[in-house]
Amino acid sequence: MSSIFTKIMKNELPCYKIFEDELTFSFLALDQVNLGHTLVVPREETNHWMDVSEKSYLQVAKNSQKIGKAIREVTGCPRVLTTAVGFEVHHYHLHLIPAWSVADLSFAKATRRSDAEMIEIQKKIIAALIATS
Amino acid sequence: MSSIFTKIMKNELPCYKIFEDELTFSFLALDQVNLGHTLVVPREETNHWMDVSEKSYLQVAKNSQKIGKAIREVTGCPRVLTTAVGFEVHHYHLHLIPAWSVADLSFAKATRRSDAEMIEIQKKIIAALIATS
Repeated sequence: MSSIFTKIMKNELPCYKIFEDELTFSFLALDQVNLGHTLVVPREETNHWMDVSEKSYLQVAKNSQKIGKAIREVTGCPRVLTTAVGFEVHHYHLHLIPAWSVADLSFAKATRRSDAEMIEIQKKIIAALIATS
Repeated sequence: MSSIFTKIMKNELPCYKIFEDELTFSFLALDQVNLGHTLVVPREETNHWMDVSEKSYLQVAKNSQKIGKAIREVTGCPRVLTTAVGFEVHHYHLHLIPAWSVADLSFAKATRRSDAEMIEIQKKIIAALIATS
């Protein structure tokens, strides 16, 4: 069975898309630790980050740097955290979390946001990405 | 002033080294969330992960996959977590944390270990790295 992320990439489930290319896909996390919280995912459906093909893994890393800069610019956060955890969804995904303190490294804080808030932050991050590309 | 990690790389401070190459340096974290907790750091002293030169950033990513596999093999953990936080040391460092649950994504759990424990896990990780290279 396809992972929830593969279903999103195949347009079988909706998402607030940020960016995509041949090897990767990026969208706002369904539950947001802070507004702007984004996932970067390889199209390849591999459970553990260290088992992802080097090509796809490095493409996730490369795109994350660009998206991370856009998140920082748009949110004004002092730091953007990255983390790969994966106990719930067994398809590698890198979290990019705008953060004001180390306490933001906690999924207990994640909440569902309104459609309007999600669309607004999505548009801003995409605009910042385009401006720097 | 050099960061604590630059001092470690220059041998001005001790560490339990795991691996080094031209662009990166890796060693056991001083405080271990779980035994085997390792940092991978670019030699380049850059504060935010998204501002690290692409070449060094991707080399950290590439080496992390190899070291992550060695940590999994040696500790038998179900997952290895990665995270970049950086509120304390302003020199990008990627944490690789052997984990048994999402609760292991917390630095509140980190503790100092005995020299004997650190040397034992260091030797095992290095041996696993060499065996797969």
